Amino acid sequence: MEIINAVKERRSINFFEPGREISVGKLKELIELANLSPSSFNLQPWRLVAVNTPERKKALRKCAFDQPKVEEASAVFIIIADPDAVEKNSARVLDSWEKLGYMKPEMRDVYLGMMKNLYGEAGSLTRKLFAVKNASLFGMNLMLTAKGLGLETHPMDGFDEAAVKKEFKIPDDKLIPMLIAAGYLKSDIKLLPRAFRRDIGEFTSFE
Amino acid sequence: MEIINAVKERRSINFFEPGREISVGKLKELIELANLSPSSFNLQPWRLVAVNTPERKKALRKCAFDQPKVEEASAVFIIIADPDAVEKNSARVLDSWEKLGYMKPEMRDVYLGMMKNLYGEAGSLTRKLFAVKNASLFGMNLMLTAKGLGLETHPMDGFDEAAVKKEFKIPDDKLIPMLIAAGYLKSDIKLLPRAFRRDIGEFTSFE
Repeated sequence: MEIINAVKERRSINFFEPGREISVGKLKELIELANLSPSSFNLQPWRLVAVNTPERKKALRKCAFDQPKVEEASAVFIIIADPDAVEKNSARVLDSWEKLGYMKPEMRDVYLGMMKNLYGEAGSLTRKLFAVKNASLFGMNLMLTAKGLGLETHPMDGFDEAAVKKEFKIPDDKLIPMLIAAGYLKSDIKLLPRAFRRDIGEFTSFE
Repeated sequence: MEIINAVKERRSINFFEPGREISVGKLKELIELANLSPSSFNLQPWRLVAVNTPERKKALRKCAFDQPKVEEASAVFIIIADPDAVEKNSARVLDSWEKLGYMKPEMRDVYLGMMKNLYGEAGSLTRKLFAVKNASLFGMNLMLTAKGLGLETHPMDGFDEAAVKKEFKIPDDKLIPMLIAAGYLKSDIKLLPRAFRRDIGEFTSFE
């Protein structure tokens, strides 16, 4: 599918065809591609739970205000933003930069300092915003990639974050910016026209 | 361009061909498409400054640690997250939902309550995270769309947010999650291989 068509035709789907599965192979292909998303200093502050069994979708539905699409979708991704990516991933990012010629070895500490500065102190607002921003880039990449693999999606805010963390054993210091339901449009559903969008002149200035 | 290829081939470009312009028509096409991004309750909490004149790119470069790519890129987008989107856009979203049959008229107040609840109180962390999350979805949509229009991009964190706000008269209560430089790869540059990515097994669990 053409990228421009994917952007035009991607819609947030409320009615998924129940009982249709996405193979684990296809889920992995989707995640692998989404993982090519850019991130601040390439620190990739995202984690993922791919909920694709009937039992666990039912459990997730209970944490998501009983919305049927959680069970009807083939899979629901819990998108997790990890504020501690600088500690976890910086050494490997710097190793690869050094090896591939992105950076001279003597610049390593300078870059590490910039990473730490950008991600802010543990527990800070800066760190939360960085994690959520980058996990959202990953989420959007995943939704457009899904179109290319013949799948529909829905980014969901309607869930109880504390309940999801408890049910799926996600540590308290992580954030969950969204769930993304993925699957196939229900066969008897015709989508309504796109809802309101602002004219670009309302929110864009050129300088 | 195929969406899967766009995802695979999108790279964060450091060296843009200086002096190449993107026409205002093409910039508008790009923004129009990116604006089809999903957002929480469709509230579209993003604004944009498209900096595409030599003088203003020079001014922006001064706010971005003097990075040459700010001037060398054809245009640099200042991506602005607006925490007040619920006040600004909710009535029009609800109007369109009512008109298009998304929602029964008597549900209007229920949905407005849900929007307000989700976006949180003015000035709250919740509101900032919501604005940044959604503006980032918009940003990723814009970067992949750009590939489809033959453009390269680079999402940038390296800038002084307060200085950008001052120079471009952006109100203090807005957030700037990123700049996105856009343009054409410099003709004599060969990209290095992609840097480190985690194996998906490291950050994904299936349930």
